[in-house]
Amino acid sequence: MRTLNVALSERAYDIHIGPGLLGRPDLFKGKLASPKVAIVTNTVVGPLYLAQVVTTLRAAGAQITTITLPDGESNKNWQTLNEVFDVLLAEHCDRATTIVALGGGVTGDIAGFAAASYQRGVPFIQIPTTLLAQVDSSVGGKTGINHPRGKNMVGAFWQPQLVLADTDTLATLPDRELSAGLAEVIKYGLIRDLPFFEWLEANIDRLRARDAEALTYAIERSCANKAEVVAADERETAKDGGRALLNLGHTFGHAIETGVGYGEWLHGEAVAVGMAMAADLSLRLRWLTDQDVSRVRNLLARAALPANGPALPVDRYLELMAHDKKVSNGRLRLVLLKRLGDAVTTADVPSELISKTIEACSG
Amino acid sequence: MRTLNVALSERAYDIHIGPGLLGRPDLFKGKLASPKVAIVTNTVVGPLYLAQVVTTLRAAGAQITTITLPDGESNKNWQTLNEVFDVLLAEHCDRATTIVALGGGVTGDIAGFAAASYQRGVPFIQIPTTLLAQVDSSVGGKTGINHPRGKNMVGAFWQPQLVLADTDTLATLPDRELSAGLAEVIKYGLIRDLPFFEWLEANIDRLRARDAEALTYAIERSCANKAEVVAADERETAKDGGRALLNLGHTFGHAIETGVGYGEWLHGEAVAVGMAMAADLSLRLRWLTDQDVSRVRNLLARAALPANGPALPVDRYLELMAHDKKVSNGRLRLVLLKRLGDAVTTADVPSELISKTIEACSG
Repeated sequence: MRTLNVALSERAYDIHIGPGLLGRPDLFKGKLASPKVAIVTNTVVGPLYLAQVVTTLRAAGAQITTITLPDGESNKNWQTLNEVFDVLLAEHCDRATTIVALGGGVTGDIAGFAAASYQRGVPFIQIPTTLLAQVDSSVGGKTGINHPRGKNMVGAFWQPQLVLADTDTLATLPDRELSAGLAEVIKYGLIRDLPFFEWLEANIDRLRARDAEALTYAIERSCANKAEVVAADERETAKDGGRALLNLGHTFGHAIETGVGYGEWLHGEAVAVGMAMAADLSLRLRWLTDQDVSRVRNLLARAALPANGPALPVDRYLELMAHDKKVSNGRLRLVLLKRLGDAVTTADVPSELISKTIEACSG
Repeated sequence: MRTLNVALSERAYDIHIGPGLLGRPDLFKGKLASPKVAIVTNTVVGPLYLAQVVTTLRAAGAQITTITLPDGESNKNWQTLNEVFDVLLAEHCDRATTIVALGGGVTGDIAGFAAASYQRGVPFIQIPTTLLAQVDSSVGGKTGINHPRGKNMVGAFWQPQLVLADTDTLATLPDRELSAGLAEVIKYGLIRDLPFFEWLEANIDRLRARDAEALTYAIERSCANKAEVVAADERETAKDGGRALLNLGHTFGHAIETGVGYGEWLHGEAVAVGMAMAADLSLRLRWLTDQDVSRVRNLLARAALPANGPALPVDRYLELMAHDKKVSNGRLRLVLLKRLGDAVTTADVPSELISKTIEACSG
């Protein structure tokens, strides 16, 4: 097991990473404000891991309520969130109740926003069971739900008490979801860590084979990179760079997810295309070389990720991008690559170049 | 105009108190993160003050979207909150948009929670137009909505950039609502400020006559008292005393509001009865004297407030009180009075005394 301590302004917490963590009551000792615990999971992950987590938490002294939500991004909405509140209230859960999220990013986002807003905030523990959630949701405290007009439009920043990233849970993850998680892993290399990008070029096959040691290293390095970025810009208020760099590929990616309807494309797949588009656009600005772009596209391909977006009209892409949260004071800001391992934010890209990139990387 | 600076952990902000504030663009200078402003008001307050606020904000350089919600506690729910999100998204409001709440406590709670959770948080300015909202919601950052199973069960702590408490807006406030606000004013005297309680005994008639100078003083002193309590316990985590003292009368009061259905009793009326019950229970514990209890009941009567609750069965009161947020780890905590001007929290009151108090002070 590896442990990463994330030190943010309000409180510090540990991310434990490695195999066999779901069976260890000792990791919960001193982490529960009261014995009362509500575990939020979903219909896919619950049957696989809920019984084990319940047994472990009981051994740690917890009294447990379980809430099983429907799976999938299309259920990340107010109705599902309200199901959580209904159960918490029916079970008389008070302000000292700890909410535990057991599942992927959607479960973590809903359970986290429930924790942030139930009685104006209760303690929260994350047990992410997808690679994407382990490397993305574990750090930064972003929680929330979707609105019919946009993704993650309603939510809160809410930090967990503890994160357990058990690599054993990745054994049951479908190949397509493992690849989607690798997109975010590759992202950390691209934005700020060239040696990690090179390590990924050398080890991508071990990761796809779910080698526990390689996974533990990739998760730890991803979380450490994210923690450094977030610590410097906890509420995403930096005008340039800062936490916005974590959105490499996300403005294009959100347009794809919204354009085809939530749930058709996995978030990581859309981000992979977005990163390929960002690389293409960076080449057009003469920041990257042809060879750099090839390395990006090759690594994405070896991770079994797409590098071309769906065949939507260019204008539709642009319209959807204009709705993205990264628009500030009405100007579209993009994250692009000055070099591999060095991302910047910019609002000064000629729109005809953006259109050319979309045309070249979609359909 | 009087100005109170509230210094809390995350940021400090000013509460301006006095007549004529709605007409002063200078008070908004430097307080808007971008020109974009969304004013949230309701169908009662909007027709009275919205035009003036729009004119003033435009003079301060703002571009304005207005959102008018249905009035009343029964509308403090997810559906109404979602109306705010719908408009913010339709108008492409970004993260630098300031949400301005123009109205009473319900409007402030909904608009504040919208500000806390829209895109995980945008700036917020409060213009409370009821006495209750001016002395209660101006300090502490509590926002939220009701759930069918309980009041304020979903929400967030979210601090404003600025509060304008314009005493002129109290001219249009119905007598019954002015009295409800006075209940919270009296509360500050009872929990920690005997000289202020005595000032209220001497000046209650001036307040009911809406004397601007008396109102300004009462609002400032109430906010100052609340700010001192909140600063010491911002997230309501103190085990004993602390922010919980602000809930004097509220556990009984919430039971009344829930028992008769939201909206039948005004919040301040229910709190008034709750304070009378707390005084009665404090007498049964031999902490207060008969004379103390008479002073409390007399001041409530002179403020045109009730001191007896609705005729619900005692068991129903107790059941409703058990659902209150002030229950921690399953134990009912009450705020009672050691002396006039000195409140404490306690979980050690014999339940037969609580029953006797409810019987004596209801029906």
